[in-house]
Amino acid sequence: MPQLQVQLVSTRPGRVGERFAHWFVGEACRHGGFEVELVDHAEVALPFFDEPRHPKLGGYAHQHTRDWSATVSRADAFVFVAPEYNHGYSAVLKNAIDFLHHEWADKPVGFVSYGGVAAGTRMVQALKPVLVGLRMVPVVESVNIPFQEQFHGPDGTVAANQVMTDAAAAMLDELLRLTTRLRP
Amino acid sequence: MPQLQVQLVSTRPGRVGERFAHWFVGEACRHGGFEVELVDHAEVALPFFDEPRHPKLGGYAHQHTRDWSATVSRADAFVFVAPEYNHGYSAVLKNAIDFLHHEWADKPVGFVSYGGVAAGTRMVQALKPVLVGLRMVPVVESVNIPFQEQFHGPDGTVAANQVMTDAAAAMLDELLRLTTRLRP
Repeated sequence: MPQLQVQLVSTRPGRVGERFAHWFVGEACRHGGFEVELVDHAEVALPFFDEPRHPKLGGYAHQHTRDWSATVSRADAFVFVAPEYNHGYSAVLKNAIDFLHHEWADKPVGFVSYGGVAAGTRMVQALKPVLVGLRMVPVVESVNIPFQEQFHGPDGTVAANQVMTDAAAAMLDELLRLTTRLRP
Repeated sequence: MPQLQVQLVSTRPGRVGERFAHWFVGEACRHGGFEVELVDHAEVALPFFDEPRHPKLGGYAHQHTRDWSATVSRADAFVFVAPEYNHGYSAVLKNAIDFLHHEWADKPVGFVSYGGVAAGTRMVQALKPVLVGLRMVPVVESVNIPFQEQFHGPDGTVAANQVMTDAAAAMLDELLRLTTRLRP
């Protein structure tokens, strides 16, 4: 089975991304098409980009970059569970993307975004040119969660509605379809 | 005189931003309309965003945030000397912006961008919705440096051409005009 990496992007204290990441991992396991791995950026803990050479040249100088390269390399598809900050993408996500290059190419990518009225969609749109620049393949299906507080269940769980579970299933189907087509 | 803050955004080893920031500080001093301060993000050295509350609520938990707030608060206008990474803005710049809120409002902002064929313009365009979301006022005049290696002089200096010096002067004029209008 192809490997889907669910990346929990937010690292700030009090992050709400954690509950949505765990919820989506559950949906992905239930879907059954992927081997699912959760990657928590609080554990990845990259510094700000500090490689002396352009990542497309490889030959990374730092162990944290080699570790991050190995993590991303083993995935066949990605879902970023990510917040919108000031109508754009967060520094943590952009930094993690910018650290690497070829590792991202030819792999489909979807989003679980969350926020207020825009449900994180401005962040997703802002990031698409970045992803395309790296030859990633963003899928149009997306889980965009508006006013995320309304979906908090007890004890850090998510009280998802039908729109969310249907959107998750549709995105997973499309990620699997593209992963199958794109794999060498 | 109003205070113009020239922010040297890149912090990576081997950064070329340093020479362009020092060049632009020279142009800004020669312009004469501003008191000019250089802010080096390698010295600011913020961590990834770690405030528990939304910055628009103030009441910052960390000393590094209070220091950064004081730095940005004393400026009347900004020029970001900033690279383009993967057709977007760098994590260092977005992180520094996201740390604060009201401190940015009602202040004009311009760019010295640099890169390859696109001269960093994709980064500038990607950032404008973020800046507008914070009530900053981006100016249309801009210094965009294509294939920046061609403008390296000896010993870390910049061998600017007439296009660059004219663009710097025009941007400084517009920043001054808007600063005068926007100041309370």
